[in-house]
Amino acid sequence: MKPSIPSGTRDFGPAEMYRRNRFFDVVREVFSRYGYQPLETPAFEYLATLTGKYGDEGDKLIFKILNSGDFLADAGAEALANRDHKKLLPQICDKALRYDLTVPFARYVVMQQHQLTFPFKRWQIQPVWRADRPQKGRYREFVQCDVDVIGSKSLLYELELLQILSEVFQQLDVGIVIKLNHRKLLAGIAELVGSADKLIDLTVAIDKLDKIGLEKVEAELKEKGFDDAALLRVREVLRLTGDNDQKLAALGRVLAGTASGPTGVAEMAEVLALAQRSGSRLCPIEFDLSLARGLSYYTGAIFEVKVQDPRSTFTSSISGGGRYDDLTGIFGLPDMSGVGVSFGADRICDVLAEIAGAGAETKTATRVLVVNFGAAELDYALRIVRTVRQAGVAADLYPEAAKLKKQFGYADALGIPYVAIAGGDEIAAGQVTVKNLKTGEQQKVALADVAATVR
Amino acid sequence: MKPSIPSGTRDFGPAEMYRRNRFFDVVREVFSRYGYQPLETPAFEYLATLTGKYGDEGDKLIFKILNSGDFLADAGAEALANRDHKKLLPQICDKALRYDLTVPFARYVVMQQHQLTFPFKRWQIQPVWRADRPQKGRYREFVQCDVDVIGSKSLLYELELLQILSEVFQQLDVGIVIKLNHRKLLAGIAELVGSADKLIDLTVAIDKLDKIGLEKVEAELKEKGFDDAALLRVREVLRLTGDNDQKLAALGRVLAGTASGPTGVAEMAEVLALAQRSGSRLCPIEFDLSLARGLSYYTGAIFEVKVQDPRSTFTSSISGGGRYDDLTGIFGLPDMSGVGVSFGADRICDVLAEIAGAGAETKTATRVLVVNFGAAELDYALRIVRTVRQAGVAADLYPEAAKLKKQFGYADALGIPYVAIAGGDEIAAGQVTVKNLKTGEQQKVALADVAATVR
Repeated sequence: MKPSIPSGTRDFGPAEMYRRNRFFDVVREVFSRYGYQPLETPAFEYLATLTGKYGDEGDKLIFKILNSGDFLADAGAEALANRDHKKLLPQICDKALRYDLTVPFARYVVMQQHQLTFPFKRWQIQPVWRADRPQKGRYREFVQCDVDVIGSKSLLYELELLQILSEVFQQLDVGIVIKLNHRKLLAGIAELVGSADKLIDLTVAIDKLDKIGLEKVEAELKEKGFDDAALLRVREVLRLTGDNDQKLAALGRVLAGTASGPTGVAEMAEVLALAQRSGSRLCPIEFDLSLARGLSYYTGAIFEVKVQDPRSTFTSSISGGGRYDDLTGIFGLPDMSGVGVSFGADRICDVLAEIAGAGAETKTATRVLVVNFGAAELDYALRIVRTVRQAGVAADLYPEAAKLKKQFGYADALGIPYVAIAGGDEIAAGQVTVKNLKTGEQQKVALADVAATVR
Repeated sequence: MKPSIPSGTRDFGPAEMYRRNRFFDVVREVFSRYGYQPLETPAFEYLATLTGKYGDEGDKLIFKILNSGDFLADAGAEALANRDHKKLLPQICDKALRYDLTVPFARYVVMQQHQLTFPFKRWQIQPVWRADRPQKGRYREFVQCDVDVIGSKSLLYELELLQILSEVFQQLDVGIVIKLNHRKLLAGIAELVGSADKLIDLTVAIDKLDKIGLEKVEAELKEKGFDDAALLRVREVLRLTGDNDQKLAALGRVLAGTASGPTGVAEMAEVLALAQRSGSRLCPIEFDLSLARGLSYYTGAIFEVKVQDPRSTFTSSISGGGRYDDLTGIFGLPDMSGVGVSFGADRICDVLAEIAGAGAETKTATRVLVVNFGAAELDYALRIVRTVRQAGVAADLYPEAAKLKKQFGYADALGIPYVAIAGGDEIAAGQVTVKNLKTGEQQKVALADVAATVR
């Protein structure tokens, strides 16, 4: 049997792990510094908790876990006889793998509502699983890094998320632009063109503007029943030019008579004003009316981060989020407004890898390999490796008295930058010869100074 | 619908997360400092990769993942008609959740054998899932922290694992004893009593000595066909007294004529000698012939860590491991000797919680809540929270101009130790009043000094 792993999943060896951990360390530290609290939920939830939360397509992509033992015990005869997999499914599976972090978060908040202090700010970094068709940049196991606050309508949290997005990508040194829009502006536009009930059709079509262009968006809208007058108005709105404030001012005039528009305009203006007043060095923020985001639970501001870095070929969305007025209602706790963003760890790590370039990877954290000369020198070698480790520096001792060439080759293959050599002379003098494998330079230092030399 | 989570799984809220992360930070740092490299493997593997590796009982406890889409498409008519769940299983599931980290590690090593440099030292910290009956200290989702080296027979790695076990528990301040034994000693004893082919029966019985006592162990052995002469010799061996060296010397005499015994004695003596020579401050090591460890793939030294701490009621095993001569043979790569230990994160965190005592938990990492007085003071409040965060200190700003009592209550409920207050006077003076919520003390400091005051 030749071993392999399921398609859409990956092993992360040391080099990938160093890159990924660099990213996770940054987001964890930023989330924590902004006052968010860590949360982890189980890898699997009851199937009933997840079903119906992601639309019909989403339901199909949820990985279901077979009940343990005789899973057919409660299976209906009819479902079996008819090979009716849809009917059989809930009879043989009551658990499923987490599909995102948002639904488990909502479930947790509802279960813990009497213990939690609101607004509750939490971050959560865990893998999620989707039975999607694997392709470049799309995996069946991937990690989401979510940061959300629930239980407040304050727009200061929209500002906070803009600050968090900016700090993370600035620390990672990835050039980005933060696209910003507001669901109530889209609702206002739908009203304006006389199709308040077609908000979803409108947002789905507008969402594709970037990819398919205005003409095809209009064709799609026409197909959905928008008339020529409506299309004209949509076109006017999408073609608004100027900076964020100018676009918003123009939109304010256009949407003045609608029910939803003015709130959207006011909130968007407030968020942009807060971004100015915050004094923070934020990444470029672009008010973009064509940003719609598919998820239907958003009701206020929506965010999306796109790579805008000359060193990267990626242009895809690598983070996104928004405000939702009723996330926990599905579990019986209404009127909890929240806002959050999610960082797509896997795509971001792909971008980091591309920007760093080939050969830039960290292959090991170990700084020095202590050469093993055999029994006579072993006590001293053990003392070297112990002393270096005690000083907080990662070190290794070659496990046997192999030829020097082999031991040096081991350090070299692993990317360990230094070797420490101690034969009779060094031992007598309480010294160690430290050799830099890249430059070939070597020097004798006191045993106590090895750690500082290789750090 | 009242939301809940599957039995045997847990949510980890902030307090649990801080405790768990303290543990994970320690093991990660120690693993890395000893030259081990990080690895992560997918949550699910092909069912065929896992099946047959954990015995029949283990196979039953593996969580299987239902195939996506019409999972009945390839189901056999016979299996369906007969409700034959065993036969149906491989027809509707080809993936399963990770049951431990050892088999995925072996699978990874075989797949990457031409890319890896041996000896390959790796650590892996990930959850595993078992459909076990949940009970105190036993969960269906739990985290294993494994550290292994593969591709060398050097006993220096046994020493390294003793050092790692010691450092981790010393850093965590948990009193432990490391039990040590060697499979070849058990094999020697089996030979000695004339039942070399009954090594498994012998080890399984001896493994229970701690729990059920010598008499019941002997009864079990008798039942398995060991005769009275054999029982007498087993009893003699199990009753050897003295310190580690004395016990080993006595055992050396007893097992001198066996095929396996002398190697076991020599290796055990070497490991104990290395522990002495290492100069490391190791935790107490107890050579314990009754330590058997169930897993059949161990072939050399075996380790187990037991809590021995007056502040803890736990006496159970919290870590364990050993040497295996042929872990990757199952995947077609023979003769790869390795040795490793696994830390049981969930039990260790239970011990940490017990030792810390009630009320000792960290509820938040946030050090200060900046009070929100409303629009007029908002710019200054934003400046305070920004400045504190820029100094690397976790800080929060209350999201609206609520009553002071409410804002203080929020800080108090979350366990945030300080509040920062800045009204007109402070703003005019470029100052901030910082109040310690525990002591009630408050002082005016320059805005730039808030971070240092609350750190």
